[in-house]
Amino acid sequence: MNAEQLFARIEAKRSFLCVGLDTDMNKIPRHLWAGDDPVFAFNRAIVDATAPYAVCYKPNLAFYEDNGEKGWVSFRRTVEYIRERYPDIFIIADAKRGDIGNTSKMYARAFFSGNLVDAVTLSPYMGYDTVEPFLQFDGKWAVILALTSNPSAADFEMQRLEEGGFLYEKVIDTSKEWGTADNIMYVVGATQARMLKGIRELVPDHFLLVPGVGAQGGSLEEVARFGMNRQCGLLVNSSRGIIYADNTERFANAAAEKAAELASQMSELLTKYL
Amino acid sequence: MNAEQLFARIEAKRSFLCVGLDTDMNKIPRHLWAGDDPVFAFNRAIVDATAPYAVCYKPNLAFYEDNGEKGWVSFRRTVEYIRERYPDIFIIADAKRGDIGNTSKMYARAFFSGNLVDAVTLSPYMGYDTVEPFLQFDGKWAVILALTSNPSAADFEMQRLEEGGFLYEKVIDTSKEWGTADNIMYVVGATQARMLKGIRELVPDHFLLVPGVGAQGGSLEEVARFGMNRQCGLLVNSSRGIIYADNTERFANAAAEKAAELASQMSELLTKYL
Repeated sequence: MNAEQLFARIEAKRSFLCVGLDTDMNKIPRHLWAGDDPVFAFNRAIVDATAPYAVCYKPNLAFYEDNGEKGWVSFRRTVEYIRERYPDIFIIADAKRGDIGNTSKMYARAFFSGNLVDAVTLSPYMGYDTVEPFLQFDGKWAVILALTSNPSAADFEMQRLEEGGFLYEKVIDTSKEWGTADNIMYVVGATQARMLKGIRELVPDHFLLVPGVGAQGGSLEEVARFGMNRQCGLLVNSSRGIIYADNTERFANAAAEKAAELASQMSELLTKYL
Repeated sequence: MNAEQLFARIEAKRSFLCVGLDTDMNKIPRHLWAGDDPVFAFNRAIVDATAPYAVCYKPNLAFYEDNGEKGWVSFRRTVEYIRERYPDIFIIADAKRGDIGNTSKMYARAFFSGNLVDAVTLSPYMGYDTVEPFLQFDGKWAVILALTSNPSAADFEMQRLEEGGFLYEKVIDTSKEWGTADNIMYVVGATQARMLKGIRELVPDHFLLVPGVGAQGGSLEEVARFGMNRQCGLLVNSSRGIIYADNTERFANAAAEKAAELASQMSELLTKYL
């Protein structure tokens, strides 16, 4: 999928919502625990309920790896289910991988072969070698960490460089040359919405994956105001705010309501800023 | 395991060798392909052959994830086998994870619960939040990427900061305050051996995990000269140079010979520099 196709799907659904599948056994409704794969059962119900409002799903690998090989089965079944039932939905493996050479090639193959997912989040610390193998797959994307929403983003991402600017700006400015706006996007935390303006100057055309919206509220408007470009250029993620909206038997309905609410706000913002 | 215990094992074996288990189905001897878990069969043979010379094994997660849930089974069986048969050997999951909050906790749990491994490699890009959950497990280690051996280490790791010094120095200098020399080590590439001198000034007591020795040769002497401290303070990794030394039925013997050769050099270097 390229940027134009992704934008077409955003336009069709009037939504740029990414639903984060951070599925934690301890947080899913108890009535699902009895099945053979509660995580998959939960994800399937969440996906069926939220698919009308989402253009993207983002399973967070940590939550699957925590269950070892069983977790990988849940992960694989989830993405295969999405592919089969909702083939127009973009899938990001939120894995924050970052290695080099042979190893990086292996990670790229692990996620892209068999068309498992469309994109993988990557940590840029080790530079070009980390990202390059992911750009060798046609229609696939590297989603590079730039400026994250956690407090300790200040430790290194926001270090000022001798040559000027912050490290995260250097990461964006350097890495945008490695690929194109059709195979690289950037992670920018929603709590850093005002910094989106500067980031848009560096990468006017690239998609940005924005986590940190939902519980915080309010910032979606800022994200759209400062971050939207002529192809929307935003995927805004909400995880817990949607998938754990309710932990009774009506969890999927509650998730749908939360997703619909965000999508409706997004539709207005698309009208306002696009 | 703390630093003193690790040093005791180095002294006992007169070796600071870490064997990297970057096990690639396409590179293991063909006669193993017929079994139900060729990767585990290969690893078991390599471990049995090299255990007298190694103080550490480092399975590289990418190579296991590439086989999905089957790969996780091979990984788990491998580390469980090492634990059972060679309980005094340190195990590093080379996963280069790096996420925050809840997710980082999940990763820490995935690797440390059930005593699966002793240490996990981590990418420091997102700062303290990435590392903190790994330091909550008693006797476990965070192995933080500092200065890697790949060409594109220059992209970001070697960026000069406005406050002075390189980014990788800032990473070391900041992160050493997050834990102690008993639960944090740093990855420093062997091709950067001369820079070990400066790194030793920042962290005189910490262990360093040094990949990139083996095929290159010669640099082991430099690594020891510039990097060794009074508790050795080094784990030097070799992967392909050992595990793929031969791809016939005598692959394990060949691996043992290569490991013995390195261990013998290490013994001399321990005499010389300790």
